[in-house]
Amino acid sequence: MSNITLEQARKVVDAAIKKSEELGVKMNIAVVDAGTNLVAFNKMDDAWLGSIDISQKKARTARYFNMDTGEIGKLSQPGGSLYNIEHSNNGLITFPGGVVIKDGSGNIIGAVGVSGSTVEDDHAVASAGASAL
Amino acid sequence: MSNITLEQARKVVDAAIKKSEELGVKMNIAVVDAGTNLVAFNKMDDAWLGSIDISQKKARTARYFNMDTGEIGKLSQPGGSLYNIEHSNNGLITFPGGVVIKDGSGNIIGAVGVSGSTVEDDHAVASAGASAL
Amino acid sequence: MSNITLEQARKVVDAAIKKSEELGVKMNIAVVDAGTNLVAFNKMDDAWLGSIDISQKKARTARYFNMDTGEIGKLSQPGGSLYNIEHSNNGLITFPGGVVIKDGSGNIIGAVGVSGSTVEDDHAVASAGASAL
Amino acid sequence: MSNITLEQARKVVDAAIKKSEELGVKMNIAVVDAGTNLVAFNKMDDAWLGSIDISQKKARTARYFNMDTGEIGKLSQPGGSLYNIEHSNNGLITFPGGVVIKDGSGNIIGAVGVSGSTVEDDHAVASAGASAL
Repeated sequence: MSNITLEQARKVVDAAIKKSEELGVKMNIAVVDAGTNLVAFNKMDDAWLGSIDISQKKARTARYFNMDTGEIGKLSQPGGSLYNIEHSNNGLITFPGGVVIKDGSGNIIGAVGVSGSTVEDDHAVASAGASAL
Repeated sequence: MSNITLEQARKVVDAAIKKSEELGVKMNIAVVDAGTNLVAFNKMDDAWLGSIDISQKKARTARYFNMDTGEIGKLSQPGGSLYNIEHSNNGLITFPGGVVIKDGSGNIIGAVGVSGSTVEDDHAVASAGASAL
Repeated sequence: MSNITLEQARKVVDAAIKKSEELGVKMNIAVVDAGTNLVAFNKMDDAWLGSIDISQKKARTARYFNMDTGEIGKLSQPGGSLYNIEHSNNGLITFPGGVVIKDGSGNIIGAVGVSGSTVEDDHAVASAGASAL
Repeated sequence: MSNITLEQARKVVDAAIKKSEELGVKMNIAVVDAGTNLVAFNKMDDAWLGSIDISQKKARTARYFNMDTGEIGKLSQPGGSLYNIEHSNNGLITFPGGVVIKDGSGNIIGAVGVSGSTVEDDHAVASAGASAL
């Protein structure tokens, strides 16, 4: 298993913060490794307190299923095939803002979760973070 | 970060109780500080037991995202952008009754959560509490 | 079942605060009813954050077994008859600071838990609170 | 209440990593704010996975009671005045490695928790982190 290093995780966080500053938003940013364990976390000043947990849950949710969190959310709606999957794994977050992180060879080495603004901003910041490697 | 004092929190609780008595309802009233820690709580006689926890979760939810809990609930519906956000932070309550508390300068210093009647009454009582400062 | 009223619970809290001020300590004070449900809580300014939970657990522990929390702690030591009873009920606190509250007829109507200083101070403040009725 | 900024928290983490490298150890390092909310976290490569949670619990425990975690551990032993306090607050860690963080005026603005080696190393790294401000 390829696994994200702390050096890589910090690059992801810093790229996410840079993107947040460009957008004028205050974010919580979490990076987990290939085993869904937390590697790095930063809470920007005045970012929502409730997003500390959400950013970590987004990162884990993305790695749990190797897809953007928003994709899972499409399937977890009432009547959907994964209805209420959020009850598993001590709580999933299935709206956008969680994105897998790949190395240069395309192997998934972790995931980043971002929370603190609209889900569009959250996803844009997470994507900017994941693209830093 | 400005933080609510016990003296202020007790004023919030007393104003909420006064409003509850005017409305003829029995409420649970919780006040948390800027860090979401509980500062004061009162359960009116014969208020719902299940609302002890709900009032505290409403107060924390309001401070977690710096908005009325009912605003979050509009976005967490099926198909909404924050669907099932309630699974985060050991359980959010996203219907009305949680309101942030500001000091005279407009700084958020805590939040109040009220539960025990209709969500309209809950919100009215919480607002009366928050307005006491 | 006789049960403590909010008016009585507030008298307990105020007596506990008065005693805390006399001792020069900062306390968290929780009152539960005969069913172990929270009725009133106050956190004095600058009291320990970790004692918010402990004060509530002390109050519940006292009512769970109808005795001072310190009495249970004597039995929960290694080799004791109630070794590690603290694992039950989502966590007990079995050192001093939790005291049952009785009405004028000697009926147990609730309990008070206090945390924020030495266990001797905690117990003295809890006892002052319970004696207010 | 004064509160640690992200810039300060990152200085604490970086100083802790530098000390860890000097000692030749692999650490998990967590920084919480004055309200015990997570602000920054780094897991050094190959640091123990079980220490991700422990470092965060140490940081919170230090701030919960405004003292080094090891001081609490002396009192929570069998027969001690705070025996089994670890059952509170969703789990405390009371051996060394958690240290409060103060600003230049002596105000507590947060805490740092370190886990990954002996408790002596954990404490030394946490202290180096806290001293960076």
